[in-house]
Amino acid sequence: MGRTVTRRRLYGWATPNTHRVSILLEELGLDYGVTGVNIRRREQFAPEILALNPFGKVPILLEEHAEGPPLVLFESGAILIHLAEAHGRFLPVDGPERTATLAWLMVALTGLGPVTGQAHHWTELAPEKPEAARAHALAQVDRVYRLLDGRLGEAPYLAGAAYSIADMAALPWIGRHGWAERRLEDTPSIAAWYERLMARPAVARGLAVPKGAVLA
Amino acid sequence: MGRTVTRRRLYGWATPNTHRVSILLEELGLDYGVTGVNIRRREQFAPEILALNPFGKVPILLEEHAEGPPLVLFESGAILIHLAEAHGRFLPVDGPERTATLAWLMVALTGLGPVTGQAHHWTELAPEKPEAARAHALAQVDRVYRLLDGRLGEAPYLAGAAYSIADMAALPWIGRHGWAERRLEDTPSIAAWYERLMARPAVARGLAVPKGAVLA
Repeated sequence: MGRTVTRRRLYGWATPNTHRVSILLEELGLDYGVTGVNIRRREQFAPEILALNPFGKVPILLEEHAEGPPLVLFESGAILIHLAEAHGRFLPVDGPERTATLAWLMVALTGLGPVTGQAHHWTELAPEKPEAARAHALAQVDRVYRLLDGRLGEAPYLAGAAYSIADMAALPWIGRHGWAERRLEDTPSIAAWYERLMARPAVARGLAVPKGAVLA
Repeated sequence: MGRTVTRRRLYGWATPNTHRVSILLEELGLDYGVTGVNIRRREQFAPEILALNPFGKVPILLEEHAEGPPLVLFESGAILIHLAEAHGRFLPVDGPERTATLAWLMVALTGLGPVTGQAHHWTELAPEKPEAARAHALAQVDRVYRLLDGRLGEAPYLAGAAYSIADMAALPWIGRHGWAERRLEDTPSIAAWYERLMARPAVARGLAVPKGAVLA
């Protein structure tokens, strides 16, 4: 806020969490470079990435400023809040609109993302796939989808009337509904919202980052 | 921010997510009433609770204001940010201190909480406990603990020099290390931080909410 950013670099891969940030960067019309971090090759654990984020996760956003040291940002939710606040868009500054945006952002960050990740593990990635683990993960995903479908049946966007970082946090994970063996038509309000957002050019550009990466 | 709160009511139970909020309310020295929502009896799915939070989860914070309708807040992370911003404490307003606080808050919200919850499920709650599910959950918890232990070996608090909502978001989950079959002495920097925070009277008061509830 107030400090002049001279250069931005996004470290990431074609993952839902990276796409949250690339979508917001595109929606804000910001210039940024991209460094691909191929998680299939475990490049997120390379020393130069661990030096930026000790958790060994992407996305990471590096901001160089006109004065002072560069700012290293990690955790997609923290990056979304930072960029929205720095540019005064997609996160209301006050009032019930701000608290609603933060609440639904948290549903995407702490609910949708982790449970869809668990489902992906137990339906695809795990060498051994116990039925109890698979069923538990899919039930947790179902609970979040029903909540989101109810919300999007009463409001056009997750936070209410306005498109916000809550939608950007949810969208790339909803795009991976196949990881939880779901069909979007079973939750029609989610499906309509998804189609509407996918028609935005900035969303399409954000989902194409990094260039040439296969969805992971 | 700026609006006068005339009354606050916290709906919750003796759960880590409720305690995040009760600890912050105590640290801020705010007046609040408590309505116990016994999750062992599934009271979070009662119609009057679902009317406040369609997800059927606690904590929920109801704020009555001098003007306008009450504000209903849900998702512990959103409530922490809201209260910290309304009172100008425990979340810096700007600069690298703010982004660090948000990043480590997110590690607690999206990493520590969900994976410890999964571990609790596969070590205690699930009727059937496949070894693959248990081992996966414990490995995920171990990864987060190692990250936090590294961080707390280089800084006194998660966000750096200052005690913040990131610590309050993590502490009640670290208190449940038994759910992930861990001993705190295996991560000595976490253990030292935990002991330091537990000595704070506001933390002790927050962890005693709601009165008479058994830890869940």
